[in-house]
Amino acid sequence: MDNNFYKSGQYLGAGSEYEDAKAVIYGAPMDFTVSYRPGTRFGPEKIRSVSVVLEEYSPYQDKQLEDLAFYDAGDLALPFGNVEKSLQMIYETTRRLYEDNKFPILLGGEHLVSLPSIRATHEHFKNLKVIQFDAHADLREDYEGEPNSHATVIRKTAELIGGSNVFQLGIRSGTRDEFTYGRQNTNFYFNQLTQPLDEVIQKCGNDPVYITLDIDVLDPAFGPGTGTPEPGGFSVREVLNAFQKLGKLNVIGFDIVEVSPVYDQSDITSVAAAKLVREALLGFVKNG
Amino acid sequence: MDNNFYKSGQYLGAGSEYEDAKAVIYGAPMDFTVSYRPGTRFGPEKIRSVSVVLEEYSPYQDKQLEDLAFYDAGDLALPFGNVEKSLQMIYETTRRLYEDNKFPILLGGEHLVSLPSIRATHEHFKNLKVIQFDAHADLREDYEGEPNSHATVIRKTAELIGGSNVFQLGIRSGTRDEFTYGRQNTNFYFNQLTQPLDEVIQKCGNDPVYITLDIDVLDPAFGPGTGTPEPGGFSVREVLNAFQKLGKLNVIGFDIVEVSPVYDQSDITSVAAAKLVREALLGFVKNG
Amino acid sequence: MDNNFYKSGQYLGAGSEYEDAKAVIYGAPMDFTVSYRPGTRFGPEKIRSVSVVLEEYSPYQDKQLEDLAFYDAGDLALPFGNVEKSLQMIYETTRRLYEDNKFPILLGGEHLVSLPSIRATHEHFKNLKVIQFDAHADLREDYEGEPNSHATVIRKTAELIGGSNVFQLGIRSGTRDEFTYGRQNTNFYFNQLTQPLDEVIQKCGNDPVYITLDIDVLDPAFGPGTGTPEPGGFSVREVLNAFQKLGKLNVIGFDIVEVSPVYDQSDITSVAAAKLVREALLGFVKNG
Amino acid sequence: MDNNFYKSGQYLGAGSEYEDAKAVIYGAPMDFTVSYRPGTRFGPEKIRSVSVVLEEYSPYQDKQLEDLAFYDAGDLALPFGNVEKSLQMIYETTRRLYEDNKFPILLGGEHLVSLPSIRATHEHFKNLKVIQFDAHADLREDYEGEPNSHATVIRKTAELIGGSNVFQLGIRSGTRDEFTYGRQNTNFYFNQLTQPLDEVIQKCGNDPVYITLDIDVLDPAFGPGTGTPEPGGFSVREVLNAFQKLGKLNVIGFDIVEVSPVYDQSDITSVAAAKLVREALLGFVKNG
Amino acid sequence: MDNNFYKSGQYLGAGSEYEDAKAVIYGAPMDFTVSYRPGTRFGPEKIRSVSVVLEEYSPYQDKQLEDLAFYDAGDLALPFGNVEKSLQMIYETTRRLYEDNKFPILLGGEHLVSLPSIRATHEHFKNLKVIQFDAHADLREDYEGEPNSHATVIRKTAELIGGSNVFQLGIRSGTRDEFTYGRQNTNFYFNQLTQPLDEVIQKCGNDPVYITLDIDVLDPAFGPGTGTPEPGGFSVREVLNAFQKLGKLNVIGFDIVEVSPVYDQSDITSVAAAKLVREALLGFVKNG
Amino acid sequence: MDNNFYKSGQYLGAGSEYEDAKAVIYGAPMDFTVSYRPGTRFGPEKIRSVSVVLEEYSPYQDKQLEDLAFYDAGDLALPFGNVEKSLQMIYETTRRLYEDNKFPILLGGEHLVSLPSIRATHEHFKNLKVIQFDAHADLREDYEGEPNSHATVIRKTAELIGGSNVFQLGIRSGTRDEFTYGRQNTNFYFNQLTQPLDEVIQKCGNDPVYITLDIDVLDPAFGPGTGTPEPGGFSVREVLNAFQKLGKLNVIGFDIVEVSPVYDQSDITSVAAAKLVREALLGFVKNG
Repeated sequence: MDNNFYKSGQYLGAGSEYEDAKAVIYGAPMDFTVSYRPGTRFGPEKIRSVSVVLEEYSPYQDKQLEDLAFYDAGDLALPFGNVEKSLQMIYETTRRLYEDNKFPILLGGEHLVSLPSIRATHEHFKNLKVIQFDAHADLREDYEGEPNSHATVIRKTAELIGGSNVFQLGIRSGTRDEFTYGRQNTNFYFNQLTQPLDEVIQKCGNDPVYITLDIDVLDPAFGPGTGTPEPGGFSVREVLNAFQKLGKLNVIGFDIVEVSPVYDQSDITSVAAAKLVREALLGFVKNG
Repeated sequence: MDNNFYKSGQYLGAGSEYEDAKAVIYGAPMDFTVSYRPGTRFGPEKIRSVSVVLEEYSPYQDKQLEDLAFYDAGDLALPFGNVEKSLQMIYETTRRLYEDNKFPILLGGEHLVSLPSIRATHEHFKNLKVIQFDAHADLREDYEGEPNSHATVIRKTAELIGGSNVFQLGIRSGTRDEFTYGRQNTNFYFNQLTQPLDEVIQKCGNDPVYITLDIDVLDPAFGPGTGTPEPGGFSVREVLNAFQKLGKLNVIGFDIVEVSPVYDQSDITSVAAAKLVREALLGFVKNG
Repeated sequence: MDNNFYKSGQYLGAGSEYEDAKAVIYGAPMDFTVSYRPGTRFGPEKIRSVSVVLEEYSPYQDKQLEDLAFYDAGDLALPFGNVEKSLQMIYETTRRLYEDNKFPILLGGEHLVSLPSIRATHEHFKNLKVIQFDAHADLREDYEGEPNSHATVIRKTAELIGGSNVFQLGIRSGTRDEFTYGRQNTNFYFNQLTQPLDEVIQKCGNDPVYITLDIDVLDPAFGPGTGTPEPGGFSVREVLNAFQKLGKLNVIGFDIVEVSPVYDQSDITSVAAAKLVREALLGFVKNG
Repeated sequence: MDNNFYKSGQYLGAGSEYEDAKAVIYGAPMDFTVSYRPGTRFGPEKIRSVSVVLEEYSPYQDKQLEDLAFYDAGDLALPFGNVEKSLQMIYETTRRLYEDNKFPILLGGEHLVSLPSIRATHEHFKNLKVIQFDAHADLREDYEGEPNSHATVIRKTAELIGGSNVFQLGIRSGTRDEFTYGRQNTNFYFNQLTQPLDEVIQKCGNDPVYITLDIDVLDPAFGPGTGTPEPGGFSVREVLNAFQKLGKLNVIGFDIVEVSPVYDQSDITSVAAAKLVREALLGFVKNG
Repeated sequence: MDNNFYKSGQYLGAGSEYEDAKAVIYGAPMDFTVSYRPGTRFGPEKIRSVSVVLEEYSPYQDKQLEDLAFYDAGDLALPFGNVEKSLQMIYETTRRLYEDNKFPILLGGEHLVSLPSIRATHEHFKNLKVIQFDAHADLREDYEGEPNSHATVIRKTAELIGGSNVFQLGIRSGTRDEFTYGRQNTNFYFNQLTQPLDEVIQKCGNDPVYITLDIDVLDPAFGPGTGTPEPGGFSVREVLNAFQKLGKLNVIGFDIVEVSPVYDQSDITSVAAAKLVREALLGFVKNG
Repeated sequence: MDNNFYKSGQYLGAGSEYEDAKAVIYGAPMDFTVSYRPGTRFGPEKIRSVSVVLEEYSPYQDKQLEDLAFYDAGDLALPFGNVEKSLQMIYETTRRLYEDNKFPILLGGEHLVSLPSIRATHEHFKNLKVIQFDAHADLREDYEGEPNSHATVIRKTAELIGGSNVFQLGIRSGTRDEFTYGRQNTNFYFNQLTQPLDEVIQKCGNDPVYITLDIDVLDPAFGPGTGTPEPGGFSVREVLNAFQKLGKLNVIGFDIVEVSPVYDQSDITSVAAAKLVREALLGFVKNG
């Protein structure tokens, strides 16, 4: 009977069993520490729902999802308001995925969800590099006294893996302290996204690379559905081009965060995110 | 691993296997013949998505979904624009459900999806009664030459099972011809919903009853997200009360149609529909 | 060639020539003096646009628009920001309609547009009565020094035709001075709509009656698309019932004002207004 | 120079100094533990912003804000994501207000904000009664292991002041356990709002009464802008009537919670809340 | 009397009689075969409605609509859900326009409406060239078994007029088969819009050219109101520049399709479409 | 007590007293003469409300608001519908600010609010230059007979200070007469924003410069929330770059107008405006 039916709630083309999958998509619907407008908890569900508007074939890469085995695990059932336990669950999931030899595709949620995922990645891979696409530096030491915050996630990452292993693209907002820290410690590219790519690629070499993309790296015109829109950003075209270039790196993990559907009546933000997930699946996951 | 995860895309509490289920929810995302604003194809997905806002316990009936085995089959993969084939698929699904001794819960889609479902019901049950909740009479012989239309669905039903077996509640819109036909042929209750219930119940007796609810029976204040809003309607409270009364009948099938999410930024229409589905599951499905 | 085409921009069923028409619909898209959210200038266009969702047949009255000759003149080309000249144009239009023996159906725009229309009516008919449906008393002497304002329109009307000829239904907002004035001078029904109708009908007798309906008489649930929503109001059902009762009066003019489409993504306010226009056409215009 | 200027960010008519004020409005923009859609952190700002659509005069009570000295303190600067500290800040604010002999008007935020406010009230007044307007029982012992939750707030209140001192109006959602607890321990009025009022008033007598109103007691038609809409609710008219009746009690504190503006493009929910705040100010605060 | 009135429902400046008109605008409000979100049936009405925001003068071309005689016929009254008959009506209308020596400006509706219009053009003009602006290749042989579909429209065109006469600009989505077909058969410009223009112009020479523009050629940032948004697209500026260049060709027909207003609360998509219609009228229609 | 509280209704970081302030922000919520969609009266309040999403530090300039003393006066209490008196109040406010040695930051409202502000500036400074960012030329002599209009504001400015002192950037809409006038009288840059900047800077030299920015200079993708969107415009990035370049001029006044929040559900327009205000404060106000 099920042959006639379509079950929503899965990302486009996700048909494999967990065991066979090269990559696993999972959502972390957490938005408990956001400082402005909440709502990213609905990001993963919406990205899946709109993904059907896309083709499974990427003309940018001449590859298609039909040829990739991947699994969509759904969303973590996080305890509302409990930050610590939520982070722990994300950490364990990403760790488990690496143990099972899967490529994790994590859908946020607020940017803080990247931290435990990066931590698990760092434990699994030597010489980890992290490439961040973001409007905000996220380099605070704490946010109003709280070390675990969407505004501290890259600072904690830098402290974990070393600032020289962190590459920050598209940054155009932060405190003076964050900018000072970034310029002294990380590969910090203020207001630039395309131009530094060659340098980034050269510095990463063959080391394992985790890519974290905050959707607000886009100009709000291209991604209005996000919690802290920062005008003066980049286009989807520019990010697609960057992804193509980064495909030659040894990428081993990916997340996309901060899609907040309620602020985008047209769903263009989640469609953009869904397209970037497709390009990540086809471009970053090694197939075989 | 899956224990930690929540997979969306299922109606609240739908956890049984098909084989064990007493009732089966399925969607028919068809809106090809609508005359005003389309969009009901997204009704079933949205009703499922928002259903999590509800409790599984109904205080109206002191029953809970945990105690009912039901299955959510997802949406029929209908061929876009092909009315005939779509209707055929719906017909076959409802027929199959009856053969497998399941109670069908059909989520539209436009109101035309009820016609094949009622046809299958009529073939399976003798002395079928149909109770319609609706703002519109849906009694046209054809709609601009087309016999299969959302505007003809109850006329075709009346021709199939006999007008005296049709009960029309909440009707407040139609052509003069429709009103004439209704008054002469069906149990036609203009602008009334609660008052006729005792009469309806008495006339149905122990006969099998199929209930079809067009969400526009609600006043647009309570259900703005629909294709042809008709002001001057009824409240959710009144429909909940009606459902409680009808629970004593021998209901054997149910559908809810015409939820069009894009016209309701607040999702109150789909939440109302989701609540009515819960009440239908708990009130109409015989549990054992 | 035009047989195959539908031209929008006309109210449902408006097909007569001006010369043959019993009634003439015209819009006054003015919102220059509003104190809170502007936008009613788009009310007339939207009411016409959505009117196609309705049937031409009214089951409430068992009459249909096909049997009434009426003309839709479009919207007055008002000079933006020029209150005086705009009011003059409205005055002249209504006056001209009476001279040509037409029943005016004026679509606002803010409530101030009613004043020149009532003035022209007063000059044409002796013993004029005015029935107002509204949340607000509109009885200020001036509004921040300005005598011509949406907040003074019924005060000016009362001064013109005598407070005892004014009937105010549904009122639930105003200053203390307005309430004092209303209670002393007009037929002032605080927070009541249905109950006073018999008294209103009896007092109006056979005198000519102009009905002005501010859509905010509805509770914001039923009419969110308006400039100054006032919670605690009435349902469309109650207003439909009132219209049926008032049909026996000698109504000679009608306006409906304050529909502000941008604040109603679902268009339920303009659909409600369109339905009330249909009921006014069929119930208030004498047909022959 | 400031004479010509209007500063927004204050509730309608709030002009007194703190020292002179009988009542103090303050916001608690917390939505960290919500289980469905977040966003109530913007409730207080929006309620203030839209309050200018109202008159300062209440015709329901024939009183006006001009005659009441009250102060609007703004919103508490809560630490995002830190539930404990946020609750502590609310507790201390309400306690301070009682010490300074002020009537607190607390604007949420999620319903959990009421708990520390009620706790401070309980410490200040003997024989405290709490009247809750709500769709949800909020009687869970914990919510997924967490005792401090929007879903437990009335349970904790009942444990604090005794269930017989708690009055629950409008309740139509909860688990079976909550309904069992409520029926055994509190004055629990399922699906009723107006009818129990005489009994409530009689039982409260002259004891101090704290009123907590969750805006979702309204049907979603009247209050779509809320986190967990529950269809089948009550109208603003019914709540206004209830407030008038309760005015005779010895009310000593008030809060209104769960207004989530982003889910209400028309702002009718926040306007309704603003109107209820006006009626609370004029009806519950003793003036002298 | 009509001098004072403005009648909406016409495109900006459309004042000529049919007989005198060089160009004729007509709408085809069909969206019956769409695979994702429907709603383009309201495109033509909205494009007309918002066109008043524009000036009649184009500074890009230093021409103005006052100097061009054109007629707006309104929308074809298509039979809902009947694809065949709808396509026939469009075919006949475009054919009739060519017979009457008019330049057709067709407003969709889904992209399938272009097919019968191109067919009529092909019958009327030898050596026809078609230039497509689109995100999607629309080169499927059939769509789930259906040859007439929005996804097959350019494939059918290529089969009709020869692939070498088809120019596809802006394409960035399709199946692998579509891309293979395009690269082998048409002038297929993947992810390019401006760069190929010189080549296109040279190849078209003096042959008659029909231009079909799917609004989703724009990035969703510039055109969110469409059925299948495809991120990574082009700006309005780029399309305006292209139109200027193409003005030198022998353009003999034009359509603009897939504007779906309900997905664009700001109406920027329909304003962009309206501006492109103005530029098409002034740039493509020969005036004399 | 106030230490714990945040009072909204002030622009980000506005903490100084009037006396100490170098710059003063004030709003002019006037939209009475607009020809298309009104709503800019809510612009100033929304710009303030969303400004908290920004950091006080500008990485573009390496400066921060903490280091600048500025005051937010709130909005002028303008008489609704009274154009003359409103303009007079704006004139007097700007004049007073110059007398008190403050830098005015005026938030509109419609573009007409700039005229009295420029007039006061012209009276205070010799050799005044005005730089306009705008989609529309605003060079009409009158608008339907009315000299004071949003469409005439730069014409009146040119007549006041001499056309050669006016610089018009980003212009892409107007009548033929306006374009002729601009090309003959002002520094008129059709469809250009970045390229003319060097010339503008050179021509301004050390003369005092007033900058007026109509938000519709942005493409509607970047600024959908405005009254008369004009597709084919510029990005926020381009305007930010221009502001950086203009920082070297002797800027003595600034306004930003035509933000209309209701047409932008995502608030990206007002966030962009808020960011431009921050850059203006840090880049144009001399600090010492």
